[in-house]
Amino acid sequence: MRLQATPWEVRAAAKRASTLEKIPPEWRLTPAQLAEAANQRDLTGPFIQKFLSAEDVAIVTKDSVEIVKDIKAKKLSALQVTTAFCKTAAVAHQINNCLHEIFFDQALARARELDAYYADKGETMGPLHGLPVSLKDQFHVKGVDTTMGYVGWIGSNLGIKDPSQAHQVESQITTELLSLGAVLFCKTSLPQTLLFGETKNNIIGQTMNPHNQNLSCGGSSGGEGALMALRGSTLGLGTDIGGSVRIPAAFNGIFSLKPTPERLSYRDAANTNPGQNTYRSTVGFLSTSLGGLVLALRSVLSTRPWERDPAVVPIPFRQTTFDEYRARAGSDGKAKPSERPLKLGVFWTDRTVGPHPPILRGLREVVDAVRHAGHKVVDWEPPLHATARRIHFAFLMADGADDVQSHLALSGEPLVPEIAGDFQPRAPLPLLEYQKLTLEGLEYEAAYSDYWNSTAADDGQIVDAVIMPVAPHAAVIPGQYHHVHYTEAINLLNYSAAVIPVTKADKSLDAFDSSYQPLNPVDKLNWESYDPELYHGAPVGVQLVARKFEEEKILAIADIVTAALTTYRKK
Amino acid sequence: MRLQATPWEVRAAAKRASTLEKIPPEWRLTPAQLAEAANQRDLTGPFIQKFLSAEDVAIVTKDSVEIVKDIKAKKLSALQVTTAFCKTAAVAHQINNCLHEIFFDQALARARELDAYYADKGETMGPLHGLPVSLKDQFHVKGVDTTMGYVGWIGSNLGIKDPSQAHQVESQITTELLSLGAVLFCKTSLPQTLLFGETKNNIIGQTMNPHNQNLSCGGSSGGEGALMALRGSTLGLGTDIGGSVRIPAAFNGIFSLKPTPERLSYRDAANTNPGQNTYRSTVGFLSTSLGGLVLALRSVLSTRPWERDPAVVPIPFRQTTFDEYRARAGSDGKAKPSERPLKLGVFWTDRTVGPHPPILRGLREVVDAVRHAGHKVVDWEPPLHATARRIHFAFLMADGADDVQSHLALSGEPLVPEIAGDFQPRAPLPLLEYQKLTLEGLEYEAAYSDYWNSTAADDGQIVDAVIMPVAPHAAVIPGQYHHVHYTEAINLLNYSAAVIPVTKADKSLDAFDSSYQPLNPVDKLNWESYDPELYHGAPVGVQLVARKFEEEKILAIADIVTAALTTYRKK
Repeated sequence: MRLQATPWEVRAAAKRASTLEKIPPEWRLTPAQLAEAANQRDLTGPFIQKFLSAEDVAIVTKDSVEIVKDIKAKKLSALQVTTAFCKTAAVAHQINNCLHEIFFDQALARARELDAYYADKGETMGPLHGLPVSLKDQFHVKGVDTTMGYVGWIGSNLGIKDPSQAHQVESQITTELLSLGAVLFCKTSLPQTLLFGETKNNIIGQTMNPHNQNLSCGGSSGGEGALMALRGSTLGLGTDIGGSVRIPAAFNGIFSLKPTPERLSYRDAANTNPGQNTYRSTVGFLSTSLGGLVLALRSVLSTRPWERDPAVVPIPFRQTTFDEYRARAGSDGKAKPSERPLKLGVFWTDRTVGPHPPILRGLREVVDAVRHAGHKVVDWEPPLHATARRIHFAFLMADGADDVQSHLALSGEPLVPEIAGDFQPRAPLPLLEYQKLTLEGLEYEAAYSDYWNSTAADDGQIVDAVIMPVAPHAAVIPGQYHHVHYTEAINLLNYSAAVIPVTKADKSLDAFDSSYQPLNPVDKLNWESYDPELYHGAPVGVQLVARKFEEEKILAIADIVTAALTTYRKK
Repeated sequence: MRLQATPWEVRAAAKRASTLEKIPPEWRLTPAQLAEAANQRDLTGPFIQKFLSAEDVAIVTKDSVEIVKDIKAKKLSALQVTTAFCKTAAVAHQINNCLHEIFFDQALARARELDAYYADKGETMGPLHGLPVSLKDQFHVKGVDTTMGYVGWIGSNLGIKDPSQAHQVESQITTELLSLGAVLFCKTSLPQTLLFGETKNNIIGQTMNPHNQNLSCGGSSGGEGALMALRGSTLGLGTDIGGSVRIPAAFNGIFSLKPTPERLSYRDAANTNPGQNTYRSTVGFLSTSLGGLVLALRSVLSTRPWERDPAVVPIPFRQTTFDEYRARAGSDGKAKPSERPLKLGVFWTDRTVGPHPPILRGLREVVDAVRHAGHKVVDWEPPLHATARRIHFAFLMADGADDVQSHLALSGEPLVPEIAGDFQPRAPLPLLEYQKLTLEGLEYEAAYSDYWNSTAADDGQIVDAVIMPVAPHAAVIPGQYHHVHYTEAINLLNYSAAVIPVTKADKSLDAFDSSYQPLNPVDKLNWESYDPELYHGAPVGVQLVARKFEEEKILAIADIVTAALTTYRKK
C-alpha cells in the first residue's frame, strides 16, 4: 500500500480542479451559465448548442461516418473537427460532469499532425483519420492518468505495477485507434468498482443524464453515454461485464455494441479484478450512430488485434456476413420479397421484474415496426434469466471484494454508499463452489443454446436475434437500479448485442399501471419506482441480441430494425 | 456415493472378460498365439499381419483418405472396410490390451446400412462415409459404457447424472461423426484421471507400446495411439489438456492434431473436473496420416458445431488458409522460388530437462530436412516453459483431487501407484491464489506472444511455426515420465499443434552421452533413464506448434515438413 499523507477528499478535490483547469479559458462558462445549466432539465440539443458556434454545431451533429468522409473529402480538416469536439466536450463536462481526463492539447497537436500527414502524403492515415474518439477511463493513453474512479490511482495509471512505467503504457486498443488515424481527446466518467449501473465515484461525484437531470446517465460507461447525448463525441470505447456499454447507450439515446469477449483487445487496459477470468469483461463501442459502430469494428479488426493480444480470437471483420444479413431488407427496413424475412424473438419480461410502461411501449413500437416491415416476431421464453444472473453475479463477487478493497485502501476513501453492501470485505468463495458454479454456467449456456435452436420447430426458421429490454426502466432515478438481469444474463451467455435508441418516456403515453401485480418484492420496488413525471424525457433503448461472435450479424439486424422504426414512424 | 456390494477387483475382472467376450470366436487368438505375442518386442506390421488375411491387410494399411475414396469409388464396401478394422482391432486388443469398449455388432450393422444408403441414394452420407473411427473412452456412444477407466462407472456413462439416461446420451462430436457417415466401432484405453502420460487403470491394467513392449504407449489417449500403431484404426478422437493427443501420437509413430480448445465440441463428453474451465481440455484427432487429420477437421467443422455447442468458436474450416500455406512449398516440401519460404523455430531444449539422444537426432533430422528444402530455421528461446507448467499444473491440481476422489469412492478402487502422489485428497487452492495464478497465466501468454512477434526483428519475417520435442524421451519406459513441460506449456498457451512421426530410437545411432551435465535433479533422473538397448525401436515424433486457432496453418506446415523429410531421406 502506498502511504498517502493527504486526505482522500483533498486529493479528489485537487484532481477535479486540475481537470477543469485543462479547459482553455475561452471555453469556460460563466457562473451564470453554469447556474442556468444546473436548473435545466434537458441539457441536450438546443441547450448545449447555445454555448457553441454554428460551425461547431454543424460539425458535432455529424456522425462518425460523415466526419471521416468529410475529412477525406477535404471539406473539413482534422483540426476543425477536433476543435469542435474538444469545445463541445469542455462545455459538456462543465454542465454535466462527464469527464475524468482532458487532454485537448495532445488532441489538437495530433490533429495538426494528421492534417500535415494528409497534405504531405496525399492519403489519410487510416479509416478513422481525424475522428475524435473518447475513452472510458480504463484505457491507458500515454501521458494521462487512468484513475478508474479510485482516488488512490490519481497521478498514475494502475494496472501498471512499475511506477516508472506510469503514463508510459498504452492499452493495445488505444494503439490500434491511433494507428487508424483517430484523435484521442478525453476520458470519460465511470462508477467506482465499474460494477454499478450508475456513474458515481469519490473523485468526480456523479454524472447525471443530459436528457433529464433527475436521472442517472447509467453505467458503468456512463460518461461515454452522457458525452454523446451532448454530442461531445461520436465514437467511444467502453467495457461491459454486466451491461456497462448497453445501459449508458439506452439511457442516453445512443447506439452501442457489446461484442463477445475476446473479439476486441483488453490488453493493458485497467479493470476490476482481472483474475476473475471465467466471465470476462468485454471491450465495446458507443456511438451516436449505428454506422459509427460498424466503422469502429471494421477498422479496429483490420489491425488484426489477435496478432498482438493472444486473448483475441482471430476472426476478421466479416463483411460478407454483414452484407448478407443487411440484404434481407431494403434501406427502409422492409423485408425484400426475394429474401427470407428476419425472424426476431421479443422478450417482454424476464418473469422476475417486469419492465415499466415506457419500456413496454418501446418494445411494442419495435415489434410493430418490424412486423410492419414484413419480418416475423415471436415471443421469447428462454431458461430463466434469474439463474444466469445468480451464477454470473457470484463470479463478480467471488473474491470477497479483495480487489476493490485493495484499491480503496490506497487512499482510505470509502465505498460509494449505493454499492457499499456488495463490496464489504468478506471471505472469498471456496474454490469447489467456484468450480461448481462454473459447471452451472456451462449448463445454462447449453440450455439457452438449445432453446434458441428450438425456435426452428414451428416454421423451420431459427430466430435471428432477440429484442430485449436493457433494463426494466428507462434512464433510472438515482438509487432505483434494483435489477440488472436484463443485461447481466447476456454476459453469462457471452452473446453479442447492439443497443439502439427507440423512444423517450412520455408522461402522456406511459401512465402508471396500478393494476400491475408484482411477482416479488423486487418487482414491487421497481414497479413502484416508476414516476411518470420524473421519468418524462428519459431515453428508452432496446438491446438486440445474437449469439457468440455474431457482431456483424447483430449490427446488420440493428440497422434493419432502426430503418424499420424510421419507416414506421413516417407512416 | 453408490453402494457397491462387489469388490472393485471383481467388477474390473468381469468388465475385462465381458469386453473380450464381445470379440467373435473366429477372431480370437489361441493361447499359443497370445503367448507368442507376449514374447514379441514389436507387434506392429508383419507380426500382427500374421493374424489377418491379405485382403484385410490391404484395407487396414490404407489411410483414411484412401478408404473414403475407395468406398466412394465402390472399390470397397463399408462392410468390407468395417470388418477388416473390427478384426484388426480385435487382434490388437488381444495382444496389446488397448480397448475399453467393443461394439463391432453396432459397427457392422451401421456399415450395412451405409452400403444400403449408398446403393439406394446414389450418394454417400457424407465425407466420412464408411470410415471406421475409434474413440477415446470419454466420448459417449449410445448403448455403450463410458468408464473413463473408473471401476465405479462400469455399467453406465458418467457425466450423465440421471441413471435413466445412462447409455442414452451421445457426445455432440459423436453425433457429428455419425452424421458425416463414420462407423464407430470401439473405444480405446486411457489412464485413470486422464492426467498421466502413460495408459494404466484399474479396469484394464496397462497398455504397452506396440512398437516395443518394454515401453508405454503414452497417454492419456494411449489406446488410440496403440491401436493405430497396429493399424486397427486410421482415425480417432482424443483429448488433450497436458499433451494427451500429442504424446500417444509421438510414442506410436502416428499423426495427431491438438486444436485450440473451443475449436471442436466437448459437449456431453466425460472429462476430469470439468469445473476447472480456466485451462480447458481440447478435443483432437489422431490418425495414421496427415491427410486423415485434414479430412477429420474439415468434415467435422462442416457440420457447424458452434450452432449446437456454445463453447465452440464459429470458425469454419479455412480452406484458403490451408491452401495458401501449403502452396509455399511443392509436393516434395521444397520452398517454391515464387513464394516466401517457411520460417520455423526449433526448440532444442526447454532449459529444464534436456531431450534424450533419439529426440535430439529427430530434431536435427527435421531441421536438416526443412533447411535442405530451402526453408529457414531459427533457434527458439521463449519465456521459460517451466513457468507455464507451474501455473498450468496448479490449475489441474486446484480442486485438491476432489473430482478424482469422488469417482474412486464410487467403487473403493485405489489410485494407480504412479499418480498416487498427485491425487491424495487435500485442501483445494484458495480462490484468491487461483485468481492470482490466472493473472500469471495471462501475463505468460502475453509475454510468449510478444516473443513470437519479436522473431521478425532480424529479417522482417515472423516465425510461422515451431518444431518442438513432445517429451524429453521417445516412447517412455513405464514409470520414467518425469517431465511433461514440453507438451503442457502449449496447453497453457492454448496453441494449436500437430505431431508428425520422424524416426525411431536406434541404439547404433543414439549412444548414451555420459558427458552431459544435468541442470537439476529431474534432468539427471531423465538423462539417466535413457537406455539405448531398452529404447531401441521406440518411435520419435515432434510437435509443430502454431498460435491459437491456427489449425489449418499447422496442418499445412506439417504436410510440408513431412514431405521435406521424405525428400531428404531419398537424397
